Amino acid sequence: MKTVKEGEIRRREILDVARELFVTKGYDHTSVNDILKIVDIAKGTFYYYFASKEEVLEAIILDIVEEGARRAEIIVKDQSIPLLNRIMMAIMAQTPEFEGSEEIKEELHKVENAKLERLYLKAMLKRMTPVLQEPVLECIKEGIAHMEYPTECIETILLLGHMMFDCDTFEWKMEEYPQKIQAFLCHAERMLGTKEGELSGFLQMFGQMP
Amino acid sequence: MKTVKEGEIRRREILDVARELFVTKGYDHTSVNDILKIVDIAKGTFYYYFASKEEVLEAIILDIVEEGARRAEIIVKDQSIPLLNRIMMAIMAQTPEFEGSEEIKEELHKVENAKLERLYLKAMLKRMTPVLQEPVLECIKEGIAHMEYPTECIETILLLGHMMFDCDTFEWKMEEYPQKIQAFLCHAERMLGTKEGELSGFLQMFGQMP
Repeated sequence: MKTVKEGEIRRREILDVARELFVTKGYDHTSVNDILKIVDIAKGTFYYYFASKEEVLEAIILDIVEEGARRAEIIVKDQSIPLLNRIMMAIMAQTPEFEGSEEIKEELHKVENAKLERLYLKAMLKRMTPVLQEPVLECIKEGIAHMEYPTECIETILLLGHMMFDCDTFEWKMEEYPQKIQAFLCHAERMLGTKEGELSGFLQMFGQMP
Repeated sequence: MKTVKEGEIRRREILDVARELFVTKGYDHTSVNDILKIVDIAKGTFYYYFASKEEVLEAIILDIVEEGARRAEIIVKDQSIPLLNRIMMAIMAQTPEFEGSEEIKEELHKVENAKLERLYLKAMLKRMTPVLQEPVLECIKEGIAHMEYPTECIETILLLGHMMFDCDTFEWKMEEYPQKIQAFLCHAERMLGTKEGELSGFLQMFGQMP
């Protein structure tokens, strides 16, 4: 009889192989059979863990959220970085890097996959809001930020960052970005209740976008 | 030979009948044939105007955006309403009413139709931002609001309003709404640079939500 741990390892194996295949061959060009062959399991075993190839992709997206949140957590705990910077850097670090995973990123942004993007957004907001809670509360305590609704402020900034810069809601042209980023930073400052211009240094960091 | 105008009338006829059917029978239970029968046209005529039933739904969604924007435009021009109120009321009036169109609303919010929701959002942002431009600039001129990025401020408030209250991104519980609405109004005030509490009166108006 398989133990729970063996099951988890098997599931993880499927996810890793699938992710690798989605990245190298593309999601559309990867079949469940391709995955089976490499993991060396029977069809039934695959379907014991996942209902479909799409469900595998969904699980990979949740992994991506988790990886991003862990990068953010490391930054949030780094006392060598000024508090306010920690918050902004954590938000940026959380953005999926899709290291070499352009294929998955593309999949996420395809119009037909708005469903996946929504899955990503909801999971990211749930996972990231508590991560930022502590540094934001500390900012308030230290008088660097002033707000009545810290949780909602975090939710709002995360939501805006994603909708504006990760998923191209406004379809801005390349040359519009500097102004849009400046406006975003200005709005974040106002919502956080920091001094004016406190976040303007992040314009550079956003420089690599989109 | 048909004139352009006749074509437009025929197209509109298809849209009106389809909308009526989607509302009464439901989108899933309406076939292209059902539409053909009532409009009394051949299949070929339908496919001359629309590639699919889904394309009809997309056109209906754009109609809904247009209807909302027109309601907003009327409010924006109403000099009897205080300026700041005009802005908030216009944003609220724009929210699709789906008069009797619960079916279309449901269709828009189904997980599988995230694509339609995104279509709605992008079209709404494009159509509504210019509508709010004038009253916002007037607020600045009159010293009621203070901001450096009026266009981006409007974009942000429209985006937040939609994501938070029209499409349930955060899956808030009923009892969380009052606080979430208060936070939203507080953030809108800060971004617009109004006096604190200037928008708090709108908590009541949001009362009917979600």
